[in-house]
Amino acid sequence: METLKRSLVDLPPAFLDALRDAVGQQAVLTGEEDREHYGHDETEDLRFPPQVVVRPRTTAEVAAVVKLCAQHHIPITPIGGRTGLSGGALSVHGGVGLALDRMDRIIAIDERNLQVTVEPGVITQVLHEAVAAKGLYYAPDPSSKGSCTIGGNLAENAGGPRAVKYGVTRDFVLNLEVVLPDGEVIWTGANTLKNSTGYDLTRLIVGSEGTLGIITQAVLRLVPLPKETRLMLVPFREAAKACEAVSAVFRAGVVPSALEFMERDAIDWTLRHVPNIAVPVADDTQAHLLIEVDGQHADTLVRDCETILQVMEAHGCQEVLFAETSAEKDALWRMRRQVPEAVKSNSIYKEEDTVVPRYELPRLLQGIKDIGARYGFKSVCYGHAGDGNLHVNIIKGDLSDEAWTNELPRAIREIFHLTVSLGGTLSGEHGIGLVQRPYMDIAFNAVQLDLMRGLKRLFDPLGILNPGKVLP
Amino acid sequence: METLKRSLVDLPPAFLDALRDAVGQQAVLTGEEDREHYGHDETEDLRFPPQVVVRPRTTAEVAAVVKLCAQHHIPITPIGGRTGLSGGALSVHGGVGLALDRMDRIIAIDERNLQVTVEPGVITQVLHEAVAAKGLYYAPDPSSKGSCTIGGNLAENAGGPRAVKYGVTRDFVLNLEVVLPDGEVIWTGANTLKNSTGYDLTRLIVGSEGTLGIITQAVLRLVPLPKETRLMLVPFREAAKACEAVSAVFRAGVVPSALEFMERDAIDWTLRHVPNIAVPVADDTQAHLLIEVDGQHADTLVRDCETILQVMEAHGCQEVLFAETSAEKDALWRMRRQVPEAVKSNSIYKEEDTVVPRYELPRLLQGIKDIGARYGFKSVCYGHAGDGNLHVNIIKGDLSDEAWTNELPRAIREIFHLTVSLGGTLSGEHGIGLVQRPYMDIAFNAVQLDLMRGLKRLFDPLGILNPGKVLP
Repeated sequence: METLKRSLVDLPPAFLDALRDAVGQQAVLTGEEDREHYGHDETEDLRFPPQVVVRPRTTAEVAAVVKLCAQHHIPITPIGGRTGLSGGALSVHGGVGLALDRMDRIIAIDERNLQVTVEPGVITQVLHEAVAAKGLYYAPDPSSKGSCTIGGNLAENAGGPRAVKYGVTRDFVLNLEVVLPDGEVIWTGANTLKNSTGYDLTRLIVGSEGTLGIITQAVLRLVPLPKETRLMLVPFREAAKACEAVSAVFRAGVVPSALEFMERDAIDWTLRHVPNIAVPVADDTQAHLLIEVDGQHADTLVRDCETILQVMEAHGCQEVLFAETSAEKDALWRMRRQVPEAVKSNSIYKEEDTVVPRYELPRLLQGIKDIGARYGFKSVCYGHAGDGNLHVNIIKGDLSDEAWTNELPRAIREIFHLTVSLGGTLSGEHGIGLVQRPYMDIAFNAVQLDLMRGLKRLFDPLGILNPGKVLP
Repeated sequence: METLKRSLVDLPPAFLDALRDAVGQQAVLTGEEDREHYGHDETEDLRFPPQVVVRPRTTAEVAAVVKLCAQHHIPITPIGGRTGLSGGALSVHGGVGLALDRMDRIIAIDERNLQVTVEPGVITQVLHEAVAAKGLYYAPDPSSKGSCTIGGNLAENAGGPRAVKYGVTRDFVLNLEVVLPDGEVIWTGANTLKNSTGYDLTRLIVGSEGTLGIITQAVLRLVPLPKETRLMLVPFREAAKACEAVSAVFRAGVVPSALEFMERDAIDWTLRHVPNIAVPVADDTQAHLLIEVDGQHADTLVRDCETILQVMEAHGCQEVLFAETSAEKDALWRMRRQVPEAVKSNSIYKEEDTVVPRYELPRLLQGIKDIGARYGFKSVCYGHAGDGNLHVNIIKGDLSDEAWTNELPRAIREIFHLTVSLGGTLSGEHGIGLVQRPYMDIAFNAVQLDLMRGLKRLFDPLGILNPGKVLP
């Protein structure tokens, strides 16, 4: 493939000159430090620096860069906040790393229509705060919300704890401006809550991981900001019982705004890793649920909490800890959000983003432990139990390099076969990117994969946009 | 195009024999009465009978029929409850009318995972009642819910009053079994609440109006059934003020479970048309809002109603009517749902399904009246104001046949240009089908349309599946 060849040789000087003409000298970076900086995300310790980093400021500049890449058959990889966990932003075939971090404007908050128009480089938490100041709420909140960007959230169809009540990124998108792989610019839909007008290009772009087009603007819907939240931490002696309680909460008529699961190890490691959090954990506690409800009125939440408490007690929970103050709530959330970092600081690891129908969680969890026992690895599991979305951190620990490299992929295949057999799939919110690509045949057969390959060819016949991702 | 040619001649006897072999003698209907029956939906007075009606019972039978059609290059049009308002189920090129009404099983209600698996021929209200019996809720509720089917709802991405709080059909779909135009059968996704695994085939099929594949099974998500509802009818002297109040409700922090708008004429015609409903309407009332809130607890709803009432009063509403009993609620809903029938019984009409960001409703409404004044037609407007989704019924009344046929399409173009200029689009929930196809160029430019045509070619290179729909 010409694309592949290109990436292994130096970029033509005429191409680099044309890039500088298109976006300005300062926005074209070829120094090693810059290339390194944009050459990694949060996926394991992978490093794939682009040959040149381009930092456009406008849609027109993005289109110009894409046109040049198409003309020269040079790969182009969109780069957001580099917090991804599947390697979607890695320039695995070199070429241009298109960093969207300078396109970070909140263009308009439309309070009358409860919509916001943003550029892709807006950091998710910045958006949260900007709309909260107007009494509005943008719910998707990946754990990396302080540094991930809306563009990346859209590309990976990111979720986060609040998805269980409010939906994932996909559910908040009304309309996208997209630069196609030939440099044409389109809007995918309309700024409306409902739309049955032609094929749903919007949701085809969401979750396509920068392989079909480059998102340069997004119109997102907003909802009224919930005024009140209540948060509780519920310990269990048995992880399976905690998982079973999850499903029962919904059957009791309550939809929490978060329903998170953490294994014992996740908590222990995090408490050691994160300063200034003191959570009492009984010796025989095996797992925690972190449960939040939100709404406009405190008394409704008190009643929701009572219902949840009854469900928890019926499943044999230990003593429930209610967060009484904002500081206590922050501490519990910080603990939950720091689990990935804590695991990372402890050992080399791989993270899988399994997702199943939520009642199947206990079987998934047990199956993962069984597979770990057979292959000799330890795993730390946590995640969005309300969505059936379990993050599986496989710890290298004492495993030999040989086992880690050659045997572990077989174990991961077993985990994904189990996931799929339970009605689930490979990724709930991290995407496939680079590292899950070898497992796509477990979720999809040849017919499905051919259809997806056809979609890729339709949008990107030259194969220049984020090559080496998603499809095996 | 060979497809077009085929439809004008008799079907080959060998093809008919093969159909009978595939699905059984009784499931292949060629009589004129049957063909007429399956040759219309609720779109104006259009009649396009298929040459043969086939009524399969299983996915395997659907696949066999599709394979035969592909082999013989014969058009195939999926047919659901025939309640569509854009002509999606009309066999405009003849060929096979594939009626899915015998595939009407609710396969499984999974109470532990809050999911239901259904065949496409299940009537929406039958599904509502089946899951409500288990304390669960499937929210999408098109006005035709008593006779429309889930397959058709999926094909058109149907909405209904509850979409304003719960989302449209698209938002309730987890996974679809689809027969592709070459007869291959795939599942589009997984039975999970979150999914970031490859391209979103599920949402590409939803709203594709039976042009990309035939849905043979659907896994839908459910939510806890709201135990309580409150319903109020709010009259206004000015339609524009009613529309303005709509946007203010959300800004006040309340998300109603329905927020419907009806012009004066819609109410008058309906009260005349529907027996046993007595709603007092003041002489100077110009429009009504029908507002519902739902939830688990009555006191929360009382508070929501108070907030809504304040908003309404601030916008100068007239005396609000609260429905006190189930019977009163039913009467008000029946009145709202009967508006289309009432309009239909009064005059020949055309219905447009405009949708805009909700704050733009007053401008849309005024613009439609202005266009009507210039072209000399009367319109009756009503719809899902909370979603900005306004159904525009254009009344033939005294218009000459010549004006109706030749001038009206120009007026409709003006309406859609206005809609798009307000950030909206052609259809909120009815789809494009046959009758809105000539207007697609108003919503999309050549690049967007080419991309959609490419999608169609990718899925259906022979162009046999529901030809003549959606794309101009």
